[in-house]
Amino acid sequence: MTDLLLRNGRPWMPAQPLETADILIRAGRIERIGADLDAAGVETLDLDGALVLPGFVDTHCHLDKTLWSGPWVPNTGGRSLAGRIANGEGRRAELGIPNPDYSANLLAAMIAGGTSHVRSHIDIDPEVGLAGVEAVRAAAARHAGRVDVELVAFPQGGLISRPGTAELLDEALAGGVEVVGGIDPAGFDGDPAGQLNLLFGLAERHGAKIDIHLHDAGALGAWEFDLIIERTEATGLGGRVAISHAYAMGALPADDQRRIADRLTAAGVAMVTCAVGDAPVVPLRVMHAAGATLALGNDGIRDLWTPYGDGDMLRRISTVAFRDRLLADEEIELALAAGTMGGARVLGLSDHGLAVGARADLVTVEAPTPAAAVVGVPTRKLVLKGGCVVARDGQLAA
Amino acid sequence: MTDLLLRNGRPWMPAQPLETADILIRAGRIERIGADLDAAGVETLDLDGALVLPGFVDTHCHLDKTLWSGPWVPNTGGRSLAGRIANGEGRRAELGIPNPDYSANLLAAMIAGGTSHVRSHIDIDPEVGLAGVEAVRAAAARHAGRVDVELVAFPQGGLISRPGTAELLDEALAGGVEVVGGIDPAGFDGDPAGQLNLLFGLAERHGAKIDIHLHDAGALGAWEFDLIIERTEATGLGGRVAISHAYAMGALPADDQRRIADRLTAAGVAMVTCAVGDAPVVPLRVMHAAGATLALGNDGIRDLWTPYGDGDMLRRISTVAFRDRLLADEEIELALAAGTMGGARVLGLSDHGLAVGARADLVTVEAPTPAAAVVGVPTRKLVLKGGCVVARDGQLAA
Repeated sequence: MTDLLLRNGRPWMPAQPLETADILIRAGRIERIGADLDAAGVETLDLDGALVLPGFVDTHCHLDKTLWSGPWVPNTGGRSLAGRIANGEGRRAELGIPNPDYSANLLAAMIAGGTSHVRSHIDIDPEVGLAGVEAVRAAAARHAGRVDVELVAFPQGGLISRPGTAELLDEALAGGVEVVGGIDPAGFDGDPAGQLNLLFGLAERHGAKIDIHLHDAGALGAWEFDLIIERTEATGLGGRVAISHAYAMGALPADDQRRIADRLTAAGVAMVTCAVGDAPVVPLRVMHAAGATLALGNDGIRDLWTPYGDGDMLRRISTVAFRDRLLADEEIELALAAGTMGGARVLGLSDHGLAVGARADLVTVEAPTPAAAVVGVPTRKLVLKGGCVVARDGQLAA
Repeated sequence: MTDLLLRNGRPWMPAQPLETADILIRAGRIERIGADLDAAGVETLDLDGALVLPGFVDTHCHLDKTLWSGPWVPNTGGRSLAGRIANGEGRRAELGIPNPDYSANLLAAMIAGGTSHVRSHIDIDPEVGLAGVEAVRAAAARHAGRVDVELVAFPQGGLISRPGTAELLDEALAGGVEVVGGIDPAGFDGDPAGQLNLLFGLAERHGAKIDIHLHDAGALGAWEFDLIIERTEATGLGGRVAISHAYAMGALPADDQRRIADRLTAAGVAMVTCAVGDAPVVPLRVMHAAGATLALGNDGIRDLWTPYGDGDMLRRISTVAFRDRLLADEEIELALAAGTMGGARVLGLSDHGLAVGARADLVTVEAPTPAAAVVGVPTRKLVLKGGCVVARDGQLAA
C-alpha cells in the first residue's frame, strides 16, 4: 500500500471532459482527483500529459492451458470442436501442462500490458482433476499484489456427458474456486436443462458465480440465453451470471439482439465477448443502449486450441472495436469501457475505476484521446496496482 | 545497389525445410543461398539465426487519404457507404488531404515494418482531380529506393454515376498511373456492364492493370465476379485483373467458393483481402487449393473512412490468418505467402522472393518458425530493399 501523487495526467472518466488533473493515492486508493493537488511529503510522478485509464480486466482467458513462453507447438487440433477438445486433453501430458511457469509468464505479460484483474477458466475433468486450479493458483501467488486472479471451475470436456466431472466441480468450489463454468449445455453437452440445473444448484450451494461458454449458434444459442435468464431470475442470482462468447447474439437480427439485451439487463446476466477468429462479436452498441453488462477477454492464448494471442488486453479491446466496426470516438470508448468497467461489473468489483475511493489500479499511455489509445495500442508507460508501479514501458517492474 | 553477405539466416522457402543458410547479395539481387558461402571482401551481416522472409507486399491501401502522423481526427462518417464517401470527400479540404507529408510518413512506417511494395488506390473525382496522384508520387519519391509504389486510378465516388470521372481516369492512365480501379459496378455505381466495359476499355487502351473494389454481398457480388471473369477472358487480360475485398466470396457456401476459385484460376483473376472489421475474408485454404492468386493489404489507414490501421503488413497478415481461423503451421503460412508472393503476382513482379536472381527485398525477424512470426508479429530486425538495409529494429535507417 502506497501513497503517491500522479501529476499532470489526463484521467479518462466517462461523461466528463478529458482534462489535465492530478491523482492523489493514499494507502493504495484514490483519495482525490483534481487540479494542482497538494500533498507534502508524498512521492510524486509526473505523467507529462499521459492518458490515465482504469486497469484492464481480462474477463475470459485460460491460464491453465497456455504454452506461453515455452517452445513453439504447431497446432494439431483440426477443425471440429470435439476434435479440438480431444487434442487439448490428449497432448497435455506430453507437453507438461498445466504448467505454473507458463501461466506465471503469461500473467507477467498481462500485467506489463496493464491488466489488473483476470478471470481464468480452468479445465476440470476426471483425468486432469484439479491440477489446473493448483497450477494457476501457484502462478497467481508469484504475482500477488500485481494482479488479482479469479478462477472458474470449467468442464471443458463436458459435464452431464462426462461422468465424474460434476463431483470435481463441487470439490473445486468447496476449495474456494469463485465461479462455476459451463459449456454449450445443448450443442456440446446434450442436456441443457440438466447442465443448467446442476450449475445453478452448485452456485447456490457454494455462493459461487456462474460463467457459461456458449458457442451454440442461431436459434439454439438464443434459446439457451432464455434458459439461463430464466434460471437467473428464479434463483435470484442476478449480477452473478455471465454468458461467455454468446456467438448467437452477434449473428441475430437487430430486433432480436435488442430484445435479448433488454432481458439480460432486467435479469442481471452479463455477456463476455472475445472476438475470436471470425466468430460473431456481441454488439457493443446494442448492449450499451440496453444498459446490459458486457466484458471482454483474450480467451485462449498460445495453447492447444489456438496458436494466437499475447495476453495484451488493450490490443484485444482494439480488436473487438475493429471487429464491431466502432468508428466514432464515443463508440470506440464503449470497447474501452467493456474492457475495464464492464469486466469489473462481471467480477463484482465495486471499487474499480477512476473515482475517489477506488483502488489505484491504473494504466497510463501516451495518446491524444481514449479512442486513439484503443486504435493505436501504445506501449503502457506505467501500470499501477494498488498504487504501486508494477510495470513500466511495457516491462514488469523489478 | 549493394553487395552483402547475410550469414546464419533461416530463409523461408516454401516447400523446403527451414535450415540455416547464408544469402549472398550482388548488385541488389540474390546471387546464392547456401551453407557457408564464401565472398571475400563483401560486407557481412550475421543474422544470428533470424528468420528471413521476402519483403511484404501491401496490395491494397489508400495512401492519398491518410491522416497518419497528423492530429487525431474523430470519425464522423456514419455508417452508410454513401454517407462515408460524402464524409471522405467533404472534409478533405478542411483537413488538407491529400497531404504528401502524411503519405510519406505512412510509407516510412510501412518500410520500417518490412513492406517492400505497395499498391495504393488514389481517389479521383472531379473535385480532387489528380491531386492525390501528385501527392502520393511526391511521397513515394522521398522514399525512392526504400519502397516501390504502384498507383491505382480509383473512382471512389463513382464512375458511371459521377460525370467527369472517366475522363480523369483516362488522363491519369495517360500520365503513367499503372492500374485502373473500379467500385461496386452494380451496388454503388448502378451500371455494372457500363462500368466494367469502360474499365476494360481503358485498361486495353493504356496497357493498364485493373483492380476493382467489390463490397457487394451475396448473389450480387458473385454475379459481378462472373462479369469480371468473362471480360478478363474476352480481353486476354488474365494475370492483370484483381478483385479487391470480394466480400461475397467469404460468405458464400463452400461449393460456390470452390467453383469461383477455379474460375478465377482459369481466367487469371486475383483477389485481394484485407480482413476489414467484420467483413468476410476471402478463404485462404480454398484459394490455395484452387491455385488462385490471393494478396493482402491494409486498406484504409487512419483516414476519414476508418480510424484504424498502422500500415504494418505483418500484423495485417496475422489478422487475416486469425480471422480465417488458420491453425496448423502450414495453414498460417498461406497468409504469409499471400502477404508476400501473392501480392508480387498481383503486381506482376517476376523477381520477388527468396530465390536466386530475385531482388534482395528481405525482412528478418526473430521467430522460431514462419507461423510463429505471423502469430507473434515480432519487431522487424532488418529490412532490406535491393540489398540495402532500409530499416533496423522497427525504425527507418538513417
